[in-house]
Amino acid sequence: MSFDAPTVIRVKRDGGVLSDEAIDWVIDAYTHGRIADAQMSALLMAIFLRGMTTGEIARWTAAMIDSGERLDFTDLRRDGRPLALVDKHSTGGVGDKITIPLVPIVMACGGAVPQAAGRGLGHTGGTLDKLESIPGFTAELTKAQIRQQLCDLGAAIFAAGELAPADRKIYALRDVTATTESLPLIASSVMSKKIAEGTRALVLDSKVGSGAFLDTEAESRELARTMVELGEEHGVRTRALLTDMHAPLGRTVGNAIEVVESLEVLEGGGPGDVVELTLALAREMCDVAGLDGVDPAQTLRDGTAMDRFRDLVAAQGGDVDSLLAERLPIGTHIETVRAPRGGTMGDIDAMAVGLAVWRLGAGRTMPGEQVQAGAGIRIHRKPGEPVAAGEPLFTLYTDTPQRLPAAAAELDGAWSVGDEPPPTRPLIIDRISM
Amino acid sequence: MSFDAPTVIRVKRDGGVLSDEAIDWVIDAYTHGRIADAQMSALLMAIFLRGMTTGEIARWTAAMIDSGERLDFTDLRRDGRPLALVDKHSTGGVGDKITIPLVPIVMACGGAVPQAAGRGLGHTGGTLDKLESIPGFTAELTKAQIRQQLCDLGAAIFAAGELAPADRKIYALRDVTATTESLPLIASSVMSKKIAEGTRALVLDSKVGSGAFLDTEAESRELARTMVELGEEHGVRTRALLTDMHAPLGRTVGNAIEVVESLEVLEGGGPGDVVELTLALAREMCDVAGLDGVDPAQTLRDGTAMDRFRDLVAAQGGDVDSLLAERLPIGTHIETVRAPRGGTMGDIDAMAVGLAVWRLGAGRTMPGEQVQAGAGIRIHRKPGEPVAAGEPLFTLYTDTPQRLPAAAAELDGAWSVGDEPPPTRPLIIDRISM
Repeated sequence: MSFDAPTVIRVKRDGGVLSDEAIDWVIDAYTHGRIADAQMSALLMAIFLRGMTTGEIARWTAAMIDSGERLDFTDLRRDGRPLALVDKHSTGGVGDKITIPLVPIVMACGGAVPQAAGRGLGHTGGTLDKLESIPGFTAELTKAQIRQQLCDLGAAIFAAGELAPADRKIYALRDVTATTESLPLIASSVMSKKIAEGTRALVLDSKVGSGAFLDTEAESRELARTMVELGEEHGVRTRALLTDMHAPLGRTVGNAIEVVESLEVLEGGGPGDVVELTLALAREMCDVAGLDGVDPAQTLRDGTAMDRFRDLVAAQGGDVDSLLAERLPIGTHIETVRAPRGGTMGDIDAMAVGLAVWRLGAGRTMPGEQVQAGAGIRIHRKPGEPVAAGEPLFTLYTDTPQRLPAAAAELDGAWSVGDEPPPTRPLIIDRISM
Repeated sequence: MSFDAPTVIRVKRDGGVLSDEAIDWVIDAYTHGRIADAQMSALLMAIFLRGMTTGEIARWTAAMIDSGERLDFTDLRRDGRPLALVDKHSTGGVGDKITIPLVPIVMACGGAVPQAAGRGLGHTGGTLDKLESIPGFTAELTKAQIRQQLCDLGAAIFAAGELAPADRKIYALRDVTATTESLPLIASSVMSKKIAEGTRALVLDSKVGSGAFLDTEAESRELARTMVELGEEHGVRTRALLTDMHAPLGRTVGNAIEVVESLEVLEGGGPGDVVELTLALAREMCDVAGLDGVDPAQTLRDGTAMDRFRDLVAAQGGDVDSLLAERLPIGTHIETVRAPRGGTMGDIDAMAVGLAVWRLGAGRTMPGEQVQAGAGIRIHRKPGEPVAAGEPLFTLYTDTPQRLPAAAAELDGAWSVGDEPPPTRPLIIDRISM
């Protein structure tokens, strides 16, 4: 059977179901440059607007895994025993720096985290963009380095590189073509990378709320279920937490600024919501990896998680001294949003904050663009906190002052100060497994 | 106001209306390479599936005209009088070689045709692809050449070049991303080029039927109405014929093979449907251009149209001797489809024939691809003609034999031989003007 891109695009455009052979062909042809970016992005928009069946999602995911190598660390031993390989992935949020404190906690608990991490997508930040704000830090690890770090340290955070190369190309396209917020595209992207990276257990953080990629709790739940099924089909023990993403996590959104907040958590402090979610995910990861009798919270109190973070940053070339002195980049141009009145801080819309930070330069509008390490927003008052008239509520940072007006405009109407505290929502909504 | 591509795409993706400023920005930014092809094709797919308002279409068209120069020939004189500037455009059909005999007829009637012609799009052929099958023929004319030919000969067929450069880029994208069959995209593409080319009067041929880009007569009628309005808004006297495109026009579909059939028409012969439609459009063009007391049919009988065609081909570098000796390229590999039984030829599906010819190599699957001059199909029996068992019904031509099976497969089920003739349809369905 011979295929061509316009014919395949036409099928999906008209609401049809792509055959297994068509999916295999599209993914292989795109990986090898026989389909142009413009053709793939037209197909992605058609998928976005027409959807995919469960069968199409499964095949699309399998084809993306097969577009590259599937790593395998099951032969590795530490103290004579197989590694407790486990990873976490979030569907993408605003201010979601959880990976940064979480990985060292799981290292300190005895897990081994082979994390293929991503860059920012749309209004959400990427762990790699954040970690690369540490001078010298690199995620370009060889396979030998990854194996060595997993055995010696218990973690490696690496750019997906040759893993699911089809996904890497598609992910970069989606980021700049407004085709991010699609269940089939999110599920297949996340799971192709996570299955190919060689983890044996996986905890997913599926976001719900304005800062999530999908609009409703029902969709986020369906996304979580779809991803858990995809993982289990490929032999990865997978479960998911459904968590709240109406407001940004923590008090910082951006690149370096989020690393600094992560250090606070590792020092035993940090915003309550970041600590709560980090520990909940750490407990799930230890559980699904079979690490019994460990206490993630203890690793924050006794400093072992911070020790593991320093080890990890140093192993990957990062300047630990800069990190400890908190000499990380911060935007040279600043704008402050002040309280128009006194009262109580109301809800803060995560999507609006994410878009504002993206406009400040923390995200991309064209493929391959550099992001600003110092771009970001500091949130001085979280929902429900008391506010005095005239005090700073948000500080915006960027290296390009002409970006400030558009970023500030995104925040307009995204928050309020009132007389009553806003309704509280549980941070962890549900737990999904097969 | 500052814009970025993902935000603009998102508006249309979610079913919103693009602002005038957003449209101006998108067209300008894409023309100058500040929006990637992949971003534009995602937007085009969103427009395809979400549609556009009348206001959006008008602005999109105006922005595409403004992306380049609008030619003006109103200063030109012939025998001391302004030229009767008039052009024709078809929304694209299968076997639609009408432009080739039509332009010389109008020349012979005293009109001046400044035709910016296009290349093949999707399953339909392009006049340029067809004419370039004449050895030496070029449509790359300078502005001075176009002016000279209009005065001296009464026509110039030229590649749109710097006219509506935004449309040229978008047109090439649509061809390979399955975003051709969209009313707003067709109307704006056709009219931006036709308004910018400098004609003062225009006759549109809006196709109805399986070989047309739009599925229903109502849509083709709406397309014609939209285009007539766009033309009149920009000061071009515009009218449209609604014509039948259920079956291919004439007995040939392809590139060089259609030029040969056009010569038959200019010699006073040729298939009845091609002659009928050519003369109907010629009468409309003479009428809208104010050429009174002329008889288009006479120019075929007395050979003056053929003389003008030779003049035109020679002026544009074409080898008239090759043309007259009918030494035009023809595919070296042949497959014949024969009648399974005797009877009467039933309907022939224009879309299927168009796709078959495209698969033979007459059209493109990747941007910028070369088309085969010799690829095409000869239709030996038209609907309603008697058929003897075993005689050839279709001959397929290509230079690449591996293309034959897929092309033959497209024809499967696209025709039949029965006992009764198929219902007849009028070729010219309606006439639309403001």
